[in-house]
Amino acid sequence: MSSTGVFEEGRLRQFTEQVFLAIGCSETDAKQAADVLIRADLRGIDSHGVARLSGYVRLWEAKRINSQPNMQLVHETPGTGTLDADEALGLVSGPHAMRIAMEKAKNCGTGWVAVNNSNHFGIGAYHAMMALEENMIGIAMTNASPLVAPTHSIERMLGTNPICYAWPARNHEPFVADLATAAAANGKLEIAQRTGKAIPNSWVQSKDGQISTDPSELKSGGSLLPLGSTVENGSHKGYALSAMVDLFSGVLSGANYGPWVPPFVSFLPVQPDLPGKGLGHFFGAIRVDAFRPLDDYFDNMERWINRFKASETIDPNQHVIIPGEPEYAMEQDRKISGIPLVEAVEKDLEGLAGKFGLSL
Amino acid sequence: MSSTGVFEEGRLRQFTEQVFLAIGCSETDAKQAADVLIRADLRGIDSHGVARLSGYVRLWEAKRINSQPNMQLVHETPGTGTLDADEALGLVSGPHAMRIAMEKAKNCGTGWVAVNNSNHFGIGAYHAMMALEENMIGIAMTNASPLVAPTHSIERMLGTNPICYAWPARNHEPFVADLATAAAANGKLEIAQRTGKAIPNSWVQSKDGQISTDPSELKSGGSLLPLGSTVENGSHKGYALSAMVDLFSGVLSGANYGPWVPPFVSFLPVQPDLPGKGLGHFFGAIRVDAFRPLDDYFDNMERWINRFKASETIDPNQHVIIPGEPEYAMEQDRKISGIPLVEAVEKDLEGLAGKFGLSL
Repeated sequence: MSSTGVFEEGRLRQFTEQVFLAIGCSETDAKQAADVLIRADLRGIDSHGVARLSGYVRLWEAKRINSQPNMQLVHETPGTGTLDADEALGLVSGPHAMRIAMEKAKNCGTGWVAVNNSNHFGIGAYHAMMALEENMIGIAMTNASPLVAPTHSIERMLGTNPICYAWPARNHEPFVADLATAAAANGKLEIAQRTGKAIPNSWVQSKDGQISTDPSELKSGGSLLPLGSTVENGSHKGYALSAMVDLFSGVLSGANYGPWVPPFVSFLPVQPDLPGKGLGHFFGAIRVDAFRPLDDYFDNMERWINRFKASETIDPNQHVIIPGEPEYAMEQDRKISGIPLVEAVEKDLEGLAGKFGLSL
Repeated sequence: MSSTGVFEEGRLRQFTEQVFLAIGCSETDAKQAADVLIRADLRGIDSHGVARLSGYVRLWEAKRINSQPNMQLVHETPGTGTLDADEALGLVSGPHAMRIAMEKAKNCGTGWVAVNNSNHFGIGAYHAMMALEENMIGIAMTNASPLVAPTHSIERMLGTNPICYAWPARNHEPFVADLATAAAANGKLEIAQRTGKAIPNSWVQSKDGQISTDPSELKSGGSLLPLGSTVENGSHKGYALSAMVDLFSGVLSGANYGPWVPPFVSFLPVQPDLPGKGLGHFFGAIRVDAFRPLDDYFDNMERWINRFKASETIDPNQHVIIPGEPEYAMEQDRKISGIPLVEAVEKDLEGLAGKFGLSL
């Protein structure tokens, strides 16, 4: 196992901003992009934080990310819009699109923005949670590099295509669910690979369609399984949910979809004869008071959370978890105690420091 | 095994309409309610068709369904609304709410209607598919009688809370996913009970939280498991999805939610100290051309479907299924060959015929 160093949030944030400035981002965009990554690290989603910083830089070097994009709303109604992100960092186009959705919700009750020509947007929770500040429900989804086989298939046709939704609460922390529509996200496989442990016999299949417990199966042509894992256990539902994310993010937006979604890693080539532009996202903002008075909602949301937290459990020491609860606790902790980075990530950041003449 | 009789669609439809007229529905409402049930039978969702007709009648007898409702939009913005269904059949309030959502989408690009004070709405697909006729994407969800335990819990806190979404296509049949957020819907358990077969060890748990293969486990205090089934396989995702449906359908609408959702069966009492009115639904209509020109969308939707249908499979005789494909094929078949009813359902309908002086 690798050793870890612990970094104070502010120090890591400043460094990350400087890296984005170094690849040509404006000050505003660099701050925005860094904020998304640091938020992931604070919330304990280590796979989507600064661990990915060098990946974004490599995509910029491969000219697949435009650090000075001219993002344009290319289609619009009072409550909807489609944004061409001009190959922006998804870390920049996502918050931009979400702000447009929130603005549209002010008039129509809800606002929805599809994004094409974009790149990996970090954690969905960042974008969805923006809506909470205005007492709106936030929704964020994105398609992603194909790794998941639909039910009955052995071909990688879908990304881990996450859905995230954030619901405001009054006294409790907000309800924030952020879930890959695969049985397990790729990050969990990477952790198993690092530790050399077998994985549950429900996450991946071999290239011939045999369920496998080998975490490196993807490297041998295998694929991730949709949520539900097997036909018997409802994998057609995970496939249908992942497909829905792909349709919203790709087919409706004008981005690529299915097996044509451009890979995150810069060393894999983009497919020929693409049906759309870049990868795609879909965002929604729903005003609570477009459906009922805010106070009524808050009263009931508190009651919902209290009742679920109090529900009887198998193990009396393990209460029912409200989605977002562990990430919220982690964020409070890491804001004070700092963000631990595994050695490989620290080396990665040192590499970036060397490349751009920065100090970590 | 029970024998089956086969009924011509028109005959079953006429009978069902007459039953709804007999409990006091208007001619329009009776036709509407019957259409939802017959559509379920045509599509092969036998658990949600005329098999439930006597259940609705019993709820009316228990004064929990109002056959002459005064449904009112009690909260509204240009793109949203909340409907108090006045204890209507969900078979009536659902299509009514969906029509309002579609009307609102004409101006705002999308329209969304939450419904409270309602009852069981039949199959979600019926409501979502209404949007297809106007080249809109349709979304329908509902909460339901509590049967599902959240991850770590042994208490029935959530219904099988389905999500349905329908996407229009040009030449192919539409993409229609209609999925319970539990590992398996209750209907599958009922079939296993009738045939006396063990169920997969991923659908239910005993009252102590042990996974069980006994299809009658629910009768002994057990509960259904969320999609994903176990912590290892992602049951927290199924729980989070089910919770989302509950929040939209109950907490946002002003209906009941969680363990307070009124049971479908009339012999189970409604809980005391209810937080809301009846059960709730949530509907959305999304204009495709609010995001991109319709022809561009259709071109890409066709390409999506063709590519997924052609994806490589484990068994060359089993292609990847597009959600809604089996139900569409069933509907074409049953429109011609008729609707088969198991003996118990036929007897049930004969009972209704006797009660209301009708002939089946």
